[in-house]
Amino acid sequence: MTHVLNRVEDFAVEATEGLVLAHPHLVRVVPGGVVRATPPGRPKVAVVVGGGSGHYPAFAGWVGPGFADGAAVGNVFASPSAEQVRAVARAAESGRGVLLGYGNYAGDVLNFGAAQDALRDEGVAVRSVAVTDDIASADGDDPSTRRGIAGDLVVLKIAGAAAERGLPLDEVADLAARANDLTRTLGVAFSGCTLPGADAPLFTVPAGAMGIGMGVHGEPGLRDDEIVPSRDLARLLVSAVLAERPAGAEQRVAVLVNGLGATKHEELFVLWRDVARELGAAGVEVVAPEVGELVTSLDMAGVSLTLSWLDADLEELWLDPAQTPAFRRGSVDAVDTGARPVVPAVADAPAAPLVAEADDVAEPDGSIAAAPRLLDAAHAVHGVLRDEEGSLGALDAVAGDGDHGRGMVTGAHAAVEAVEDAVRAGHGVGRALVAAGRAWADKAGGTSGALWGELLRAAGRSLLEAEDPTAARAVATAVTAAVERLQAVGGAAVGDKTIVDAAVPFAATLRDSVAAGVPLASAWADAAARAAAAADATGGLVARRGRARPHAERGLGHPDPGATSFAHVVGAVCR
Amino acid sequence: MTHVLNRVEDFAVEATEGLVLAHPHLVRVVPGGVVRATPPGRPKVAVVVGGGSGHYPAFAGWVGPGFADGAAVGNVFASPSAEQVRAVARAAESGRGVLLGYGNYAGDVLNFGAAQDALRDEGVAVRSVAVTDDIASADGDDPSTRRGIAGDLVVLKIAGAAAERGLPLDEVADLAARANDLTRTLGVAFSGCTLPGADAPLFTVPAGAMGIGMGVHGEPGLRDDEIVPSRDLARLLVSAVLAERPAGAEQRVAVLVNGLGATKHEELFVLWRDVARELGAAGVEVVAPEVGELVTSLDMAGVSLTLSWLDADLEELWLDPAQTPAFRRGSVDAVDTGARPVVPAVADAPAAPLVAEADDVAEPDGSIAAAPRLLDAAHAVHGVLRDEEGSLGALDAVAGDGDHGRGMVTGAHAAVEAVEDAVRAGHGVGRALVAAGRAWADKAGGTSGALWGELLRAAGRSLLEAEDPTAARAVATAVTAAVERLQAVGGAAVGDKTIVDAAVPFAATLRDSVAAGVPLASAWADAAARAAAAADATGGLVARRGRARPHAERGLGHPDPGATSFAHVVGAVCR
Repeated sequence: MTHVLNRVEDFAVEATEGLVLAHPHLVRVVPGGVVRATPPGRPKVAVVVGGGSGHYPAFAGWVGPGFADGAAVGNVFASPSAEQVRAVARAAESGRGVLLGYGNYAGDVLNFGAAQDALRDEGVAVRSVAVTDDIASADGDDPSTRRGIAGDLVVLKIAGAAAERGLPLDEVADLAARANDLTRTLGVAFSGCTLPGADAPLFTVPAGAMGIGMGVHGEPGLRDDEIVPSRDLARLLVSAVLAERPAGAEQRVAVLVNGLGATKHEELFVLWRDVARELGAAGVEVVAPEVGELVTSLDMAGVSLTLSWLDADLEELWLDPAQTPAFRRGSVDAVDTGARPVVPAVADAPAAPLVAEADDVAEPDGSIAAAPRLLDAAHAVHGVLRDEEGSLGALDAVAGDGDHGRGMVTGAHAAVEAVEDAVRAGHGVGRALVAAGRAWADKAGGTSGALWGELLRAAGRSLLEAEDPTAARAVATAVTAAVERLQAVGGAAVGDKTIVDAAVPFAATLRDSVAAGVPLASAWADAAARAAAAADATGGLVARRGRARPHAERGLGHPDPGATSFAHVVGAVCR
Repeated sequence: MTHVLNRVEDFAVEATEGLVLAHPHLVRVVPGGVVRATPPGRPKVAVVVGGGSGHYPAFAGWVGPGFADGAAVGNVFASPSAEQVRAVARAAESGRGVLLGYGNYAGDVLNFGAAQDALRDEGVAVRSVAVTDDIASADGDDPSTRRGIAGDLVVLKIAGAAAERGLPLDEVADLAARANDLTRTLGVAFSGCTLPGADAPLFTVPAGAMGIGMGVHGEPGLRDDEIVPSRDLARLLVSAVLAERPAGAEQRVAVLVNGLGATKHEELFVLWRDVARELGAAGVEVVAPEVGELVTSLDMAGVSLTLSWLDADLEELWLDPAQTPAFRRGSVDAVDTGARPVVPAVADAPAAPLVAEADDVAEPDGSIAAAPRLLDAAHAVHGVLRDEEGSLGALDAVAGDGDHGRGMVTGAHAAVEAVEDAVRAGHGVGRALVAAGRAWADKAGGTSGALWGELLRAAGRSLLEAEDPTAARAVATAVTAAVERLQAVGGAAVGDKTIVDAAVPFAATLRDSVAAGVPLASAWADAAARAAAAADATGGLVARRGRARPHAERGLGHPDPGATSFAHVVGAVCR
C-alpha cells in the first residue's frame, strides 16, 4: 500500500524533487529526470540510465561520481518518454557520447530507442545496453528476450565505472554488454505491491505461496510453490542461477541479494547467510556482495539473487569507487559531504521538441477550419478513456503491469491540451495531430505512450502532405500511414495479441469503405466496429511464443488491453 | 509478514551472521552481538549500542569507524540480555571506558543497567545514555519517561563521533546526553508488522487511518486520524515537533525522515519534499538530512520525522565521517573496501557468567535430593507457558509489543536446560535456581527475561543460605526475597499493572500460610490462587499515569501479561 502522496499524477515528479533535496550535493533535477550536481571535471562518456519510478534505488539513486551521469525518471512502472531520455542525455553529455542503459521492457526499448535515434540525429554518439538478467522471463535460447531486474545494478555500475575511467564510448558499451552477458537473476515474490492511489494490490500471490520468477511488476513467473525455509530458498535460487552459468565464466562473481520492498533487512541477511554457504559449497568466490534493497518494486514482498560472473576487467570496474544517493563504495574525491542546507528551487524548464517536424508548414484553410472538430474528437477520446481507465488497468494487470488505463488517460489528456493550443494558434489538423502525438508520448511515457505518439504523429504528417486533409481519402491514407508506422515501431504482427490486432483491420476497413465511396462517418463507424470485434477476439487467440510468452499464457481468455483501448479510441471519434 | 527465515528462535542470530558475511571488513560476530572488524588504532571510549532485532539498521548496522564500536543484538523486539551487553562491551572496549547507548524501554533499561553494574564491578568505567526522543510516548514534563525511536541515530552517531575524536568518557557521555536533550521525533503508523513465525500482524491500524504517535512495536499513540495527503502530513509532523523545540535551541537542525519498513523510498522522498518546504517556511536550517530506512520495525508501514537541534559542537560531530554497514558519511581511512571473499566462520564462544555467584557453595544432601523435583516443576512451568504462549502474546499486544509469550517460553526452556545440567552435576536446588535465573535472563532477554532472571537468582541465593532449603519456611523466605528483588529491580509498586501485582500477594499469602503451619503444598496452592485472582484484577485497575500511560490506558480491561504469566508459573509449580 502506498500511503504517502499528494496527487497520484505528481508522485514520480515529487519523489524526484525529494531525492534531490535529500542529496543536493550529488544530484539535480533537469527536465525528464536528474543529472549529477557537479559536471565531470573533464569530458567523458555520459552513462544515462532510467526506467519507471517505483524501483528506487533504480534508477535515480545511482547518479553520481563512479556510476551514472543522469537518470530519466518515468511515472510509476512506466518507461520515461523518448523526450525525457533525450533531454536528460543532452543535460548529462560532455562531448564523448552517451551510453543509454535500461531494463529490457517493451516500453523502455521503444522510448530509449527513439531517444537514441533523436540524439544521433542531433550529432551525439550513442550506444545502448538493455539489461536482460531475469532467467525466469524467457528461455535461455534467446536471452535478448529476457527482462532486466536487479542485474541492472551490476551492469550499469560497471558501465559507470568504465566511463569514469575515461574509456571511449565503444569500450564502455562493450564492457556493459559483456557484463550483461555474464549476469543472471532469479527472483521470488511473496506478495504484490500497490500502485500509488490504488486501494488494492496490482497483483497478488496466494497466501503461503511464493511466485518463483515473478517479475517486479507482477509479470507471471515460472510457477507458484509453497514458501520454504530460508535454507531451502537459498538452495533453490543458487542452483537455478548456477545452472545458467555462462560458458567459460570464471569462479569469481559479484552477488546481489535484493529485497523487493517489504521483505526486510534481517530477512535478507538470513537469506544471504544461507546463500553464502551454498555458493561456498559450489566453489564460487564472492566479490563485494551487496545485500539490501537494490531494485525494489514499491511495497512488494520478495527477494532476488543475482550472480554476475567477473573477469579481471569487470572485477576491477565492479570494485571501483562510486558515490551516489543509494550506492557508496570506497572514496570519491571532490564531493562535498559537509553541511547541506536545503535548496528549495526545482528546475522546470520547458522541454525542447523531439524533432523539428511540421513546425513551419502552411496548412490549407479547410484544415484549419476542421481543427475544432479534431478537438471535439480528442475530448470524446479523453472522456471514454477516463470512463474505461479502471477496466483497462484490470485487463493490463492480468498479463502486464496494470498501468495501461492510467497511461492512456494521461496521454489523451496531454493530447487534448496540445490540440487546444494548436486550435488557439490557428493551426490545422495536421500540425494539431503532430503536436498531440508529441504531447501524448512525452506525458504518458511507457509502451502505449510511445506507440500512440508515433501513431498520431504519422497521421499528422500524412495529413500535412495531403492536398485536402479533410477529404475522406486523405483521412483513410493518414490512418493507414499511422498503422504502418505503429507496426514498424512496435515490431508486432497481427495475431500477437497487441494493439496491432485491432489497428490493422480498422485501417483496412476504413480504406476499403472509403475507396468504395462510403461516406467518411459511416466508413469510420464500420471500421471502429471491426476494431472492437478484433480487440475482443484477442481474448481467444492462442498465445504466441517468445517475448510475450508468460504474459500471453496467463492472459489467455482476456482481451489485450492495447487492442481494447485502440477500439475505445476509434469508437469515441465517431460518436 | 516475515517470509524468509529458518527456525524462529534462530532468526536474530542468523540475521547477525548474514550482516557480518555481507560486511566482513566492517563488523565481526562476538558473543552477544557484533564489534568492529578492526580494533581502533589507539585506545578510545567504546560506544556500545543495542536493542532488539527487527529495527535494522538499528543497531548492528551502525558499527564501524566514526560510529559505534559494538552492538548487542537482542531477539526480535526484545532487549539483549545483560550478559550480552556485558560481553559485547568487553569485546569492544580498549581501555578508556564504555558508553552504553540504547532506546529508553523497560527491558533495555533493566538489561543495560545490569550490564553497567557488572562492568563497573569488573573495573570498567561506564556511562549510559537512554534515548528519549518520542514526543508521543509521554508528556514533556518528564521527558525521561519517553521512548527512544529514530532519534537513536542522531544521538548515537554524535556519541560515536565524539569517541572517535578521542574525547574522554565523561565528555562523550555529556555530549550524547546533550544531543538527546535536543532531539525530538514524532511518527505515524499506517499498518502493523508481523513477527517472524507469526501469521497475523502484531498490531493493526484501521484501514484508511494512521496511528499518530504509535510506537515502533505498536505501542499505543496519541490518536488515530484519517490518512491525509503528504503535504498535510508534513505540516502535522513539522508543527508537532517544532512545538517541542527545546528552550534556547539554535536554528540549525539535523533532520531524519524515516521509513518504518513498508513505506517505500519514493514515498519518503515525497514526504521529505513537503517537510523541507515546511521547515524552510519556519526558518529552520537543515543540516545533512537523512531520508530512508533508518530505524525500522520489520514490515511496518509508517514514517517518522526527527529534528535534532544542533549547537556548533553537535553539528561538527553530526558531520564527522563514518563508515558502517548502513551509514556512510565522508571518507574514513584505513577501511579495506576492496574484494571481500566470503568468510564462513562465525564465532560462537560460550558466554562468561554475569557474576561469580554460588559457584563454590556446598549444598546439603536434602537440597541435592530435592533438585529432581525442581526439574519436574521447571518442566511443568515450561509446558504451561508453551500452552499459553499465544494468549500471553495476545495480551501483550494490547498494550506492549506482543513478545511476552515467546520470551517466557524461551526463558523457561533455558531454565529447564540449566536445571537439568545442575541435577546432572549433583547440585542442589539453590545452585540450580541461580543457574536457571542466569540462563533465563541470558536466553530470553527483554524485560521479562531480566526480571525472571533476577527473581530466580534471588530465590536461589536465599535457599543457598538456608539451613534446610527444603523446609516450607525456607521456601517462603526465598519467595519473599525473590519478590523483594523483583520490586527493587523493576521499580514498580502494587497497582501499577505489572508482575508485581501478582507476585506480592503470592509471596505474602505463602509466607502467612506457612507461618500459620499450613503444609507447603496447600500453602503454595492457596498463594497461586491469590496470584491468579490478582492477575485477573489487573484488567480492572485504573491506569496509573507516567511511563506506562498510553499502555495502561489502552490496556484497560485486559489483564497485565506479566502478572498473568507469573500466575501461570506459580500455578504450574503446584500441579
